[in-house]
Amino acid sequence: MSGPLRLTGTPASGGYAEGPIFCMDNDAASYLSKGSDAAEAAALKTAIAAASEQLAALAATTTGEATDMLEFQLAMLADDSLSAAAFDAIKAGTPADKAWSAALAGEIAGYEAAEDEYFRARAADLKDILQQVLDVLTSAGNRAPPPGAILFGEDITPTRFLATDWSAGGGIALAKGSSASHVAMLARSRGVPMIVGLGSAAREIAGLALLDAEHGGIVLQPTSGDIETFRKFSTAYGERSRRAEEGVMKPAMTKNGVPVRVLINVADPVDLDRIDIKSCDGVGLMRTEFLFSKVTGLPDEEAQYRAYRKVLEWAADKPVTIRTIDAGGDKPVPGFTVEEGNPFLGLRGIRLALARPDVFSAQARALLRAAVHGNLKVMFPMVAVHEEYARATALFAEEAKKLAAAGEPYAMPPLGIMVEVPSVAIAPELFSDVAFFSIGSNDLTQYVMAAARDNTAVATLNSATHPAVLRLIADVTEFGRQHHIPVSLCGDAGGDAAAIPLLLKAGLRDVSVVPAQLALAKAAIAGVTV
Amino acid sequence: MSGPLRLTGTPASGGYAEGPIFCMDNDAASYLSKGSDAAEAAALKTAIAAASEQLAALAATTTGEATDMLEFQLAMLADDSLSAAAFDAIKAGTPADKAWSAALAGEIAGYEAAEDEYFRARAADLKDILQQVLDVLTSAGNRAPPPGAILFGEDITPTRFLATDWSAGGGIALAKGSSASHVAMLARSRGVPMIVGLGSAAREIAGLALLDAEHGGIVLQPTSGDIETFRKFSTAYGERSRRAEEGVMKPAMTKNGVPVRVLINVADPVDLDRIDIKSCDGVGLMRTEFLFSKVTGLPDEEAQYRAYRKVLEWAADKPVTIRTIDAGGDKPVPGFTVEEGNPFLGLRGIRLALARPDVFSAQARALLRAAVHGNLKVMFPMVAVHEEYARATALFAEEAKKLAAAGEPYAMPPLGIMVEVPSVAIAPELFSDVAFFSIGSNDLTQYVMAAARDNTAVATLNSATHPAVLRLIADVTEFGRQHHIPVSLCGDAGGDAAAIPLLLKAGLRDVSVVPAQLALAKAAIAGVTV
Repeated sequence: MSGPLRLTGTPASGGYAEGPIFCMDNDAASYLSKGSDAAEAAALKTAIAAASEQLAALAATTTGEATDMLEFQLAMLADDSLSAAAFDAIKAGTPADKAWSAALAGEIAGYEAAEDEYFRARAADLKDILQQVLDVLTSAGNRAPPPGAILFGEDITPTRFLATDWSAGGGIALAKGSSASHVAMLARSRGVPMIVGLGSAAREIAGLALLDAEHGGIVLQPTSGDIETFRKFSTAYGERSRRAEEGVMKPAMTKNGVPVRVLINVADPVDLDRIDIKSCDGVGLMRTEFLFSKVTGLPDEEAQYRAYRKVLEWAADKPVTIRTIDAGGDKPVPGFTVEEGNPFLGLRGIRLALARPDVFSAQARALLRAAVHGNLKVMFPMVAVHEEYARATALFAEEAKKLAAAGEPYAMPPLGIMVEVPSVAIAPELFSDVAFFSIGSNDLTQYVMAAARDNTAVATLNSATHPAVLRLIADVTEFGRQHHIPVSLCGDAGGDAAAIPLLLKAGLRDVSVVPAQLALAKAAIAGVTV
Repeated sequence: MSGPLRLTGTPASGGYAEGPIFCMDNDAASYLSKGSDAAEAAALKTAIAAASEQLAALAATTTGEATDMLEFQLAMLADDSLSAAAFDAIKAGTPADKAWSAALAGEIAGYEAAEDEYFRARAADLKDILQQVLDVLTSAGNRAPPPGAILFGEDITPTRFLATDWSAGGGIALAKGSSASHVAMLARSRGVPMIVGLGSAAREIAGLALLDAEHGGIVLQPTSGDIETFRKFSTAYGERSRRAEEGVMKPAMTKNGVPVRVLINVADPVDLDRIDIKSCDGVGLMRTEFLFSKVTGLPDEEAQYRAYRKVLEWAADKPVTIRTIDAGGDKPVPGFTVEEGNPFLGLRGIRLALARPDVFSAQARALLRAAVHGNLKVMFPMVAVHEEYARATALFAEEAKKLAAAGEPYAMPPLGIMVEVPSVAIAPELFSDVAFFSIGSNDLTQYVMAAARDNTAVATLNSATHPAVLRLIADVTEFGRQHHIPVSLCGDAGGDAAAIPLLLKAGLRDVSVVPAQLALAKAAIAGVTV
């Protein structure tokens, strides 16, 4: 290469990394033939066992969704029917690496063609497994990146992310990828800088790379001038992050002294073990999809009650807003959600809950019973028309009556709604009887811009800071102020330093962010004058 | 049955029908074994040939999309690889009906699982073919409905609709179905009353039925009181329709004398043969997807130029608004559109056109050249941000420059945008430089309500008369009035008698409707005082 190569993409996890580039897409190490069918079969068997051990070891170091995914992959690896075709091919004289690849490629193609989100997710898991066993077979130990390396390629599997040692720094730069992907969420929670959508991933590159995941650029073969500039930005970012971490235990306040409440979004109660309740003003969004897993299906009332109570007790007197089941869309649950041509515009959130009163009632009872253990608020996702709110509150009232009749302790929490369907934000006066509004900026943005949040082809349109989205946020906030209905925001925009000044300007004084963004959100708020 | 059975559903094509119920889902007539493998194979061969002849005969009586579909089915029937598995099974001793059903069922399952709109459409075509050949094999001539019958069942294939003789009246009542389906569109254009979403389709019913597709109800085994009431409604509806037809050649005007312009939506120039230009104020929406067919792919510039010129010459001096290619969403074009998890929120409309400048430039040149032959306006679909409008107008300017340099005659038409992405309706001031706005109420509604227009599970939410949708329509109309930018509406709401008073109240004075709704729209307008 005859000079620096500069690529630009979209930041998926903020930060800076300087280190050797490591191309993930280079051809795998070559496979050494084992000489006999029996030896090939033994090699594959050993490789599957070794890959399973690696997965189990990884699973022991993770929590929540990452563990679920790894356990799902482990279960698939343990399924003999997956490998049967490979062992048959080996008997017919095919080498183990080709036999394994071919057997899984067939399965993967089937799932990928399905085009349904749930099956595509399974295809990604199968690809991950295919690669893991192949890595063992080809002794691809030499493919491990050096410490502090910047991993560069088309895309990266969650397992590869989890198996990489990030303790010496490093980062990720992807030709494709999505900032809404599982890996991007993992990267944000671990603080690993990551850029997606670079467009091309040249294979024949090496040497030093500068990854700027604050602005979304990477420089390969940098000049000394590039390095100097990069380090200035990187140092300034590190300094801001450090100051932000120092400020995380203090209440958030704007530059001119206006207090702002900053709460956290919780996807799984296990996340709370790493968080000090004193660092936030409560839980602004507790999702309940973790209870409705791809593997175990629908939870019973007791399991829910215990999970909700645990979070309420953790939060002590601080408010905890739990969202009723928001399955559907990009969150399929077998036996509950349905397959649709446009799941984001389909039977999801409150629509699905109302269509399945058996499931919804069990959740209502668990929430009503848990409410006596803390400061609970409950909100309904994807409300579009008032009738949905009326039916949901009626169902809660009915379950409360039953609990009262049975002599079970319970309390009726304030019942609010998510503002994510544009109809609610455009005509909030139809909802003047709700206990509170919580703006879901991710879904609201995708509907206002008609651009799916998980589709990279329309990613540039999907911006929560578009004037139309900000106008709706300001309108709802103003309506809430006039009618004494609390308004908060729990989408990704609340933790985005570029969006925070605009949200505060729109009148918001209450945001809920993922724990990893808590410090930066408070720091960003401290820089704003309203 | 011990009394009247009343079912309610959603009107998909207005009108009333009184006649014998005809259950489409009763078991097919039994198949008579032919005695030998050779005779079975001959029977299947004959049945395929007969079904092909029936299809060809049907195709000769249709135009536009219906012909495309029938020709596509004919091509599939002519494809030996489809029937090869059936003939193999016959050789192995399977009777012809079972062999044919099994061969196609396998194909259909594959397409259905794909869950992609384009492949699902192919599955519907295959089902249609399966049934047609089976009907011939089982001599299901006795399954033809009596004249004036009300066809009742789970769903109905387009072929069956086209093959039915509607000259003596009759109607359609479906347990499932969708008002956005191909069949529903055919029913509206032919004036056949139709209700969808009745929920259940009992098989063991017979006798007289009353179909009220104005309000969405069907009564089976009616009482004499039911019949009396029904005929009152039916007569009143017929009277209104007759008066409306009388008024179709007069300009539309509200009760208090405010003129309203009523234009027509055209999906295919062949539709114009049946329409008198004097009955409307021009073409408010001419789609161009008919040129980008599933079968023939992308059209060349000349074919487009001829089609556009034909419509402009037909309209004489009246305005014709042609919409640039709006592929994607529910309108896939092989070699152009891409498969997506949520196509309605994906790479469609102007997004796709700008991503494929080769295709878009050819269309721009054809439009610029056609513009000299009439009163052309051009609009861009699915615009979400101003940059898209800027890029599209720049592309038109560039092609105009090239035509000028080549000495080719051309004219630059006014360039406007569809208002269907909520962002445009919420912040129209970002588009103060467009030549005109055309509100696409169908897409606007599905985004504002976050409810896909083709999903029956969320059909009740998908309402263009929700206050939030009407507020956006009123806001855009008022913005246009203040800034002297013409505003029209070209969605289904413009031809919906229930919606028209609300649209006029929102300030609209310019609607475009499908030709079949022209008379009723004018009649509805005449009943409104604004």
